[in-house]
Amino acid sequence: MNKPLILVTNDDGIDAPGIRALIEVMNELGEVYVVAPDKAQSGMGHAVTINSTLYLDEVKINNGPQKEWSCSGTPADCVKIAKQEILPRTPDLCVSGINHGSNSGINVIYSGTMSAAVEAGIENIPAIGFSLQDFSYDADFEPAKFFVKKIAQSVLNNKPQQNLVLNVNIPYGKLETIKGIKICKQAKSTWVEEFDKRVNPIGKTYYWLSGFLKTIDDKEDSDNSDLTALSKNYVSVVPVSFDLTAYKTMETIKNWFN
Amino acid sequence: MNKPLILVTNDDGIDAPGIRALIEVMNELGEVYVVAPDKAQSGMGHAVTINSTLYLDEVKINNGPQKEWSCSGTPADCVKIAKQEILPRTPDLCVSGINHGSNSGINVIYSGTMSAAVEAGIENIPAIGFSLQDFSYDADFEPAKFFVKKIAQSVLNNKPQQNLVLNVNIPYGKLETIKGIKICKQAKSTWVEEFDKRVNPIGKTYYWLSGFLKTIDDKEDSDNSDLTALSKNYVSVVPVSFDLTAYKTMETIKNWFN
Repeated sequence: MNKPLILVTNDDGIDAPGIRALIEVMNELGEVYVVAPDKAQSGMGHAVTINSTLYLDEVKINNGPQKEWSCSGTPADCVKIAKQEILPRTPDLCVSGINHGSNSGINVIYSGTMSAAVEAGIENIPAIGFSLQDFSYDADFEPAKFFVKKIAQSVLNNKPQQNLVLNVNIPYGKLETIKGIKICKQAKSTWVEEFDKRVNPIGKTYYWLSGFLKTIDDKEDSDNSDLTALSKNYVSVVPVSFDLTAYKTMETIKNWFN
Repeated sequence: MNKPLILVTNDDGIDAPGIRALIEVMNELGEVYVVAPDKAQSGMGHAVTINSTLYLDEVKINNGPQKEWSCSGTPADCVKIAKQEILPRTPDLCVSGINHGSNSGINVIYSGTMSAAVEAGIENIPAIGFSLQDFSYDADFEPAKFFVKKIAQSVLNNKPQQNLVLNVNIPYGKLETIKGIKICKQAKSTWVEEFDKRVNPIGKTYYWLSGFLKTIDDKEDSDNSDLTALSKNYVSVVPVSFDLTAYKTMETIKNWFN
């Protein structure tokens, strides 16, 4: 039997420690192709490159059986170009990450890591975005690797028929402190923005976007949310839809525009 | 009674004809603040600027009572900075567009126009993204204006309590050829990519992303989809959710990771 074909990408750039950890795990599960951005792309959402050119370079960042290409585009571009120009066939799985920093709650919308997974999902490739709840460049990815392997292996075993995209967030800490895996819903949350207003050397005002994530779930929603699971030291798994239709609202507005 | 406060933005840039048409209509409905990108941002998805600075400039592109700022960021940045740094209070409505080109089907995921509307929705501001099914810079926006006004006025009248985001696509053509407004679901569709591979003057290969949108709806889904409505010369209105949880899939995978 052929080994599963696995596409690996991320949004922190092809040389980030997080994707290196992910590649190591995937090498144990299948034949690995890496197509990832040549530089960090955080906060890119589901951007695609339509007004500029794309470059691809075959590279070898570290040892291992994986084949690797760096791409000048966004995470979503990487998935598109991998499928069309590089992969020998449709992959059995696409994994993105491991992101340096969590992508729970509303962050799924802004996340380059998840945009790659969603792009794969749209193309009917089972996909998982992995994020570690630690922003630091030299975070310890060892405990996360245990859960990455378990979840990826299970998705491969279950051979999902269509449109499976998972948003997986892993708490930071030693393996023995992580309590297990929970299937969750996306926490209702919003960023409270605080623009940091400064003046540049030639006297012009500019801004840095900053702020903090605020949960706006009520109690009932909160019990089953990814943010709650993470705060209790569980790995959160949220299945993600790219049919954005708000079906209930269709009923609410049905006579508004007659 | 105070006039409604309306925030206008887009992704084609503050001087695009589409946003000029939108401002004209909004001036009839309320007090208008424009905060829009200083250059075209198509295909930016839900990108936000976190690794770079943002500039804001008060500008006057053409006559009218509207107040206007151009911003160096993405459409989502424009909504965030407008709320925090410019608007006197939370607006009653945010409108984005009118986009040069449709944002139906899966395009909602890639659309900068819709990312601004979704960003407003996350911040609990009723929001509408408007797109015209014509890519040309000098498209005729006159027929679209009739529907823009009707839909925006109705949303203001209905005072939605929370989380209303509408994706409105308007067929191209004379007003009398447009048959009406339909509440729709997002068509199941995918881009079939065709990378245009070229060689630059110094011999290096590069790619242009291109392709075409393919509908993958079955018959039943298709009857009620935005792509079908547009093809029959109806204006399509799809309510959009930013809770991306695939609730049905939670059940499917509930025992996968035990």
